[in-house]
Amino acid sequence: MARLVPVSDSADPRLADFVRLRDMNLRKSLEAEHGLFIAEGEKVIRRAVGTGFPVRAFLMSERWVEPLADLLNGLDAPVYVADEATVEAVAGFQVHRGALASLERLPLPPVEDVIAPTSRILILEDLVDHANVGSLFRCAAALGIDAVVLSPRCADPLYRRSIKVSMGAVFAIPYARMANWHDGLGALRTAGFRLLALTPDQAAVPLDKVAMSERVALMLGSEGDGLSSRWLDEADEAVCIPMSAAAMANGVDSLNVVAAGAIACHALLRA
Amino acid sequence: MARLVPVSDSADPRLADFVRLRDMNLRKSLEAEHGLFIAEGEKVIRRAVGTGFPVRAFLMSERWVEPLADLLNGLDAPVYVADEATVEAVAGFQVHRGALASLERLPLPPVEDVIAPTSRILILEDLVDHANVGSLFRCAAALGIDAVVLSPRCADPLYRRSIKVSMGAVFAIPYARMANWHDGLGALRTAGFRLLALTPDQAAVPLDKVAMSERVALMLGSEGDGLSSRWLDEADEAVCIPMSAAAMANGVDSLNVVAAGAIACHALLRA
Repeated sequence: MARLVPVSDSADPRLADFVRLRDMNLRKSLEAEHGLFIAEGEKVIRRAVGTGFPVRAFLMSERWVEPLADLLNGLDAPVYVADEATVEAVAGFQVHRGALASLERLPLPPVEDVIAPTSRILILEDLVDHANVGSLFRCAAALGIDAVVLSPRCADPLYRRSIKVSMGAVFAIPYARMANWHDGLGALRTAGFRLLALTPDQAAVPLDKVAMSERVALMLGSEGDGLSSRWLDEADEAVCIPMSAAAMANGVDSLNVVAAGAIACHALLRA
Repeated sequence: MARLVPVSDSADPRLADFVRLRDMNLRKSLEAEHGLFIAEGEKVIRRAVGTGFPVRAFLMSERWVEPLADLLNGLDAPVYVADEATVEAVAGFQVHRGALASLERLPLPPVEDVIAPTSRILILEDLVDHANVGSLFRCAAALGIDAVVLSPRCADPLYRRSIKVSMGAVFAIPYARMANWHDGLGALRTAGFRLLALTPDQAAVPLDKVAMSERVALMLGSEGDGLSSRWLDEADEAVCIPMSAAAMANGVDSLNVVAAGAIACHALLRA
C-alpha cells in the first residue's frame, strides 16, 4: 500500500526536497548536496521510476493519488499529500502537472562504457540552457542517436526543466559526462569515432556532403560562442548547415543550437 | 538632433507604451489597441527601424544613448532617458539589452501578394508559443524559405518575445496572415503550391522521399495537437520525419515543432 502522509504546512521540513523549484541557484546546490533530482507530472515520473531511479518522496495534491495508485502502491517512499495551495507554496509556482517526485541520482557510467555499443553519438560542449539540453536529448532520442556525451560544464540533463522539455527523453538515451574537458575527446578518438564539429562557418563542409564512417560523433558548442577553438582544432572535420545567402546579407546568419542540432542529427542518421 | 527627454517617474503617462512587458494579456490588448509593438536591444531596434517601421518612442538608460546616437539623431521620436531602476520599474523586469523602442505596426500585405514571388513557403497553423514562432522565423529566414503564412489565430511574430527569439528574423522574411482559417489554404492552392502537411504519423511519406514541385508550402501545426484534420485533409501529401523505432518503443515519439520545422525546412530547400 502507498504510504500516504497528509501535510498542510508548506514549511514542513519533510518537504525540503521540493522547495523553490524555480530558484536555479538554490536547486543546483540542494540537488548536488543530496544527490537528488525532481520529476514533474505523471508521465515523466513513471519514466523516471521505470528507468530505475530510487524514489525519495512524492508530493502531490489529492487528485493525483488515484491515477498514480499502481505506481505508489509498489513503492516504500512517503507520498506527501497536500492541497494545491500548499504544493504551490512549497514549489514556488503552480504545478500544472500536479505530481512531483524526488528521486536519487545514480552514478553516471564512464564515457567509455556509454560509447562502447554505439555508432552515432552527440557531444555537447558547455551548453548553459537547460531547455536546450532537454530539447537536444529529445531530438537525439527521437531520431535515433545512440548516446550523448557531455562536457564537464554542460548543463544538467536531470535538472527539472531539462527533463520536462525533453519529455522524458533524458531517461531514454544513455549519456555520460567527461571527467575533464582538456582531454575529453581522447576516449572518442581511441574508440575510432570520426569527430564532426558543427559550426556556422560557411567555409566548412556542408553537412550533406560530409564523408561518413562507421562511428561518427557530432559536436555541438555552447549557445553564445559555439565550440571552443581547442575542440574545433581536434575535430576531424568542421561541418556546416548551408545558410541562405540572402538571409546572411540581411544579418540572419545562424540557427539556434536546437534547430541546428536537429538538422544535423537528422542528416547524420540519413547518411 | 535626438529629442532626449529625461524621465524619473515610472508612472509617467508618456511611458505607457512600455509598461509591464511580461504581462502577456495586458500587452496583447495594449499593443492591438494602439497598433504598436516593442523592439528590445540595439541590434533588433536597428533592424526594426531599417525595415521601415515608424518609431513612436524610445526608452533607455543613459548608457545606450551614445551607441544609438546615429539612429536617434535621424528620427523625430522622443527618447525617454531614465536610470536603470526606473526602466525596470516601467518594464517590469531588468532590461538586459538596455534599450527599448515602441514602433507602429504597418498593415500586413494580403497573402496573395506575399506568396506571389515565392517558391518555398512555410504555413503555421495556430501556434500558441511566441518563442516557437520566433524560432521558426529564424529557421525559415536562415535556411532560405521565401515567406511565412500564418493562420488567423497563430501567435504574433511582432510580440516582443517572438522578435527576440527570432533574433530579428521576423523583419527579414515577408509574412502574411490569412483572413480566415476555413478557406485559408485556397489562395495557396490557386497559386499552384503543392501543400505538404508535416505530421508525426510514421505512415506518412518520409520527408526525404517526397515528390517536390516548383512551388511547395510546408504546413506546421500547433504545439499540442498538430495540424487540424481539415488542413490535413486539404494537403496534397502528409509527410513525416522518420523516427527511431527504438525511441518510439520507449515512448519518445515526436520532436518539438521547432526541431521538426528546422529539419523540414532544411529538407525542403535541399530537395
